[in-house]
Amino acid sequence: MDAISVIRAKRDRGRLSDEQIDWVIDAYTRGEVADEQMSALAMAILLNGMDRAEIARWTAAMIASGDRMDFSRLSRPTADKHSTGGVGDKITLPLAPLVAACGAAVPQLSGRGLGHTGGTLDKLESIPGWRAELSNDAMMTVLDEVGAVVCAAGDGLAPADKKLYALRDVTGTVESIPLIASSIMSKKIAEGTGALVLDVKAGSGAFMKNIEDARELASTMVGLGNDHGVRTIALLTDMSVPLGLTAGNALEVRESVEVLAGGGPADVVELTLALAREMLDAAGLPDADPVKALADGRAMDVWRRMVRAQGGDPDAPLPTARERHTVTAPATGVLAELDAYAVGVAAWRLGAGRARKEDAVQAGAGVELHAKPGEPVVAGQPLMTLHTDTPDAFGYAVEALEGAFSVAAPDAAPAPRPIVLDRIG
Amino acid sequence: MDAISVIRAKRDRGRLSDEQIDWVIDAYTRGEVADEQMSALAMAILLNGMDRAEIARWTAAMIASGDRMDFSRLSRPTADKHSTGGVGDKITLPLAPLVAACGAAVPQLSGRGLGHTGGTLDKLESIPGWRAELSNDAMMTVLDEVGAVVCAAGDGLAPADKKLYALRDVTGTVESIPLIASSIMSKKIAEGTGALVLDVKAGSGAFMKNIEDARELASTMVGLGNDHGVRTIALLTDMSVPLGLTAGNALEVRESVEVLAGGGPADVVELTLALAREMLDAAGLPDADPVKALADGRAMDVWRRMVRAQGGDPDAPLPTARERHTVTAPATGVLAELDAYAVGVAAWRLGAGRARKEDAVQAGAGVELHAKPGEPVVAGQPLMTLHTDTPDAFGYAVEALEGAFSVAAPDAAPAPRPIVLDRIG
Repeated sequence: MDAISVIRAKRDRGRLSDEQIDWVIDAYTRGEVADEQMSALAMAILLNGMDRAEIARWTAAMIASGDRMDFSRLSRPTADKHSTGGVGDKITLPLAPLVAACGAAVPQLSGRGLGHTGGTLDKLESIPGWRAELSNDAMMTVLDEVGAVVCAAGDGLAPADKKLYALRDVTGTVESIPLIASSIMSKKIAEGTGALVLDVKAGSGAFMKNIEDARELASTMVGLGNDHGVRTIALLTDMSVPLGLTAGNALEVRESVEVLAGGGPADVVELTLALAREMLDAAGLPDADPVKALADGRAMDVWRRMVRAQGGDPDAPLPTARERHTVTAPATGVLAELDAYAVGVAAWRLGAGRARKEDAVQAGAGVELHAKPGEPVVAGQPLMTLHTDTPDAFGYAVEALEGAFSVAAPDAAPAPRPIVLDRIG
Repeated sequence: MDAISVIRAKRDRGRLSDEQIDWVIDAYTRGEVADEQMSALAMAILLNGMDRAEIARWTAAMIASGDRMDFSRLSRPTADKHSTGGVGDKITLPLAPLVAACGAAVPQLSGRGLGHTGGTLDKLESIPGWRAELSNDAMMTVLDEVGAVVCAAGDGLAPADKKLYALRDVTGTVESIPLIASSIMSKKIAEGTGALVLDVKAGSGAFMKNIEDARELASTMVGLGNDHGVRTIALLTDMSVPLGLTAGNALEVRESVEVLAGGGPADVVELTLALAREMLDAAGLPDADPVKALADGRAMDVWRRMVRAQGGDPDAPLPTARERHTVTAPATGVLAELDAYAVGVAAWRLGAGRARKEDAVQAGAGVELHAKPGEPVVAGQPLMTLHTDTPDAFGYAVEALEGAFSVAAPDAAPAPRPIVLDRIG
């Protein structure tokens, strides 16, 4: 077995055998297959595809490259959520404590943001004192005592994926459904959750721009999860407009706390509740009532304990950016368009995101929206407030937003778009 | 400009712009574009192709990555030959002195063998004392005084190609017509020859197994050469059976000397003369008579001076392998098939070739043929003699030869195959 013969097999549109997949993942993890060989293979997979059986074996090999966690000693059933990433997607922040408040344990291993989509850990790190890194033992303790934990995945889980993910990021081989599905699911299956709800986004602000690709990705991942004994379902959700009214780290924490306090934007509340119901159902708790747990303050109570358990102060004021710039409505009418990708790029350029892994993010930077599509606006009213510590960025952010929004006559306003587009399970 | 956007452009079936090509070749040569990025790009090029204009720019960028040689001060016109590689292809050895004897200067920068095809430098290095490495000045002196020089290409010529060639070799990205054509032609154009004859081989023992691919490669290279002011023509030649009666280093030198002495196998003589005529014609010497130069000993005289100029002793006995094994004819009749690839692999396993660049080759190892297709054979007569210093290799060589030859009834003998299949110029 050697790397070149495996690369050639996929290059020439063949199927990879189980032995080839097991060997290449193991040899890559050990460093025997070089980065330049794996990136050529990744490109061949991106262009020539893998069938379901190949993807399943590839995922299993990545799981086998590291440790698996075991939550079986917890008294509560586990349920996790994974989003494929979008603009303003802070749902994990209210969702994890809400589902924990309803009786499930939520082990949420999360990542940092790269490019125009934010990362859950970056958002939580804007809370003074909060830290993402926990040992496996500390994570288990928080999960046991609080019911929800959001932390960085340890190095021991699916190390093959960790290495491959970093490689794909610099070699133009990210956008492959087999590679995306196996990457997400290897981590989630190795993590050991009993139930998993996938939020697969489609639209300009998502990795998958069209719903057919999103559906294919969702159905691939649902198959992988269930085949490995994880009760998995997916919601296809809209990511053509930003979620809620904020995109940025501390800005999104503030909005999440509003949701936990019983307020917050309607779309964030709707999606949080939809995902909570699916998680509780998959965890075997179909009678739990997340609406009540949000209304009576139990979810907020778990949030505060969850933040404290990781060193954060839930009462400390959140950081704000030093400079602001207002974008105003160009006409009177109804806001017709508000492109998620443009808002994501603007927030990124303002300092909320990073261009390279080693960059730091600004806690206070981002975009605050004052209207969503379908809402009336008056010429000259504030449409967005841009926040940053680096005012040079305003020009780049405004440039990113060019053509990203439009105002229509009231009778030409677009029909309201549903958030949940479909359910696959 | 960044590597990922260039990779994505080709991945998504776009054309690379001149600026993208210039940048990526330069940045790769300087190490700013990493190997794992270039291999992903190479795989995308292999699978999605490049059009003629992209190939031309890619070639020009590789030429521009290093030095160009200049033979304009020589009193004689220059002509070079490049073969895409085959089994038993020792043609350069009699050809270079023959063309020099007819009045052209032949600057033959050659390579070492990898895999089942041999390398010209490996063959010449079996001559006691002969060395491949010459400085540019020394090369120019030999060319001036002897008329022909066969040596290793200096590091300064097309360094981008040197780096990319090594990368493609380990990443399954060799078999791409745009990458093969630009690799060969960037070196040949940078070398500065005035005329170039390409021997593009098709058949089991060649890189191009079918004639359509070989024709496409030949026509791409002829276009590139002429566009850069090098008079270039190509012969498409058969590589389904080995050339001549030997495959191996010293074995092929011995056969080449036989040709220079006026003897040797008919197919080697025929191809040597066909290529010599094309080179002399392209060099502006259409009246030269290579048949005469071979017959009257002038070609042999240049050979002896050429070997001596690089430290070799043309009169020293050539090395022989310590062990021999005879393969006999399984039946009486006419030899019908003799597969070039199988003979190449057998010679390689016997020690004539190398599996990795750093391996040494055995001077005496290889395969000696006692019959070619179309010739009568008697059951039990020697069909091949296998030579090696490492008798453990006999088993592997015999295995490679399984099914590679067959004996037919005299009336079922295959029609003789022409060597030169077509001419593209």
